[in-house]
Amino acid sequence: MTITLKDIHEAAQRIKPYIHRTPVLTNKSLNEKVGANVFMKCENFQKVGAFKFRGASNAVWSLTDEEAKLGVCTHSSGNHAQALALAAKMRGIPAYIVMPNNAPQVKKDAVAGYGGQITFCEPTLEARESNLERIKNETGANVVHPYNDERVIAGQGTATLELLEEIPDLDVIIAPVGGGGLLSGTAIAATETKRGIRVIAAEPEMADDAFRSMKEKKIIPSENPKTIADGLLTSLGTLTFPIIQERVEQVVTVSESAMIESMKFIWERAKIIIEPSAATVIAVLWEKKIELTGLKVGVILSGGNVDLGKLYW
Amino acid sequence: MTITLKDIHEAAQRIKPYIHRTPVLTNKSLNEKVGANVFMKCENFQKVGAFKFRGASNAVWSLTDEEAKLGVCTHSSGNHAQALALAAKMRGIPAYIVMPNNAPQVKKDAVAGYGGQITFCEPTLEARESNLERIKNETGANVVHPYNDERVIAGQGTATLELLEEIPDLDVIIAPVGGGGLLSGTAIAATETKRGIRVIAAEPEMADDAFRSMKEKKIIPSENPKTIADGLLTSLGTLTFPIIQERVEQVVTVSESAMIESMKFIWERAKIIIEPSAATVIAVLWEKKIELTGLKVGVILSGGNVDLGKLYW
Repeated sequence: MTITLKDIHEAAQRIKPYIHRTPVLTNKSLNEKVGANVFMKCENFQKVGAFKFRGASNAVWSLTDEEAKLGVCTHSSGNHAQALALAAKMRGIPAYIVMPNNAPQVKKDAVAGYGGQITFCEPTLEARESNLERIKNETGANVVHPYNDERVIAGQGTATLELLEEIPDLDVIIAPVGGGGLLSGTAIAATETKRGIRVIAAEPEMADDAFRSMKEKKIIPSENPKTIADGLLTSLGTLTFPIIQERVEQVVTVSESAMIESMKFIWERAKIIIEPSAATVIAVLWEKKIELTGLKVGVILSGGNVDLGKLYW
Repeated sequence: MTITLKDIHEAAQRIKPYIHRTPVLTNKSLNEKVGANVFMKCENFQKVGAFKFRGASNAVWSLTDEEAKLGVCTHSSGNHAQALALAAKMRGIPAYIVMPNNAPQVKKDAVAGYGGQITFCEPTLEARESNLERIKNETGANVVHPYNDERVIAGQGTATLELLEEIPDLDVIIAPVGGGGLLSGTAIAATETKRGIRVIAAEPEMADDAFRSMKEKKIIPSENPKTIADGLLTSLGTLTFPIIQERVEQVVTVSESAMIESMKFIWERAKIIIEPSAATVIAVLWEKKIELTGLKVGVILSGGNVDLGKLYW
């Protein structure tokens, strides 16, 4: 099944009443520092603090009333769980979330706070998948995968539609890559809306499975990644990888220190809170591994969920 | 001399090309937490990271070309020094800044970075004033006081014009009070634009000179205040106090812990960086010392300049 620009436009219409249209911010100090004109699409201001709410909302509101009644389900320990729980709550349907029992208390509380019905399991992929399968069979709920799902990919692409509506003459768009949902949605929306626009992925060096997958032309699983960008630990999906191969110019890896420096710079100068995963896109500009001088560069600041108790500097 | 709404409108026109029109943000979690509809005027996104740039710009651009050639001068260790230096730089004129030699290095660097010509002196009010007097006599530069100056007060009031343009039906506006420049500009702009609007000042309990001044009907100097709100240490001025007496309903004092909790909440939930002085306005809602339930409350988030090396929680 192919995801088209039409799917993303339909997603945008579908989720419009429920999501925030997030602002596009610029910052003079940042532009001077990196030598480019940077336009920051602030998904850190999105509901639940991350772009994930777009894809989850599109999945939830794509269901027929009959399907919706039975609810949605997923396994996730992160932002997707919160996003799906809130989207389901807004439609008034149940959300069944399988979470590993070692998930941080703050995330468990957040999912429960949005009305998600949590099933705890052992922290292995097998336990998560088998519990999800059981819940799906018991409830008839619709499974919404965090990234390997057409509805989710189309939903994530809506951020780029909004960005290009405001800044139509971007030369480049940079998005972070974990499982590839945001990146593939971004890539379809960008390249189908504007011929010749370059799409670049930002990935931590310490979790460089997408970089290696592109090189080897097959999905290389992420193995034991150790990065502060805790939103980018997963491997590419069977749906997202081909889209990325087709439409993304390259994956640029960034160091942990560049992420930390970029993140601090954005907090200090732009006065907004971004999480490490979001800082990867600034870090690409920061480290100047590729030449972007003088270009108009859109970046997707994917989220702003950080633990303010432990800072990285 | 009386400052009128017309002065503030003229200031707004004068400084419009140079300042940021800052956004007005809302946050559902905050509204639920405090039980009011809160509209945050984000002067933390203003140039130099604080509303101070409005007043400084209005002063600088009010000068005739002849006056301007000789430059501007002030004594300040804080945001006003940076604001005046940048405003002067944008007009291409000199700014002479007297700073106490114990000012933090980061502030010295910032003023120098904006092209301010710094004279260091002993950290006493006498040394600061005598050095300023000498520089004024030597250079002919125009003195721009941080708050006790009509041009500065009118400039600070422009934030409220913008806020009321976007949200005309506010019931209340809350602004922090230190020297009273922001508060008096806010009060004139608000009460002259909208009959019956309530203007409330937020002040740290640990620096409650404005609260006491209102009670005693005379300016009580701030003595050795110990608060994390380092922008609110100064005493009221002879120009600002009468305006505040006439137009501000009351000064509400807030605890240090309420400021810290409010600040953390805004960082975590609204994903924006505010400084302790700005958190006072949220703290008024947080502590619920006065009844604002269900009202539409505008708050001026005065600035976002914090040292990310030392957090307060």
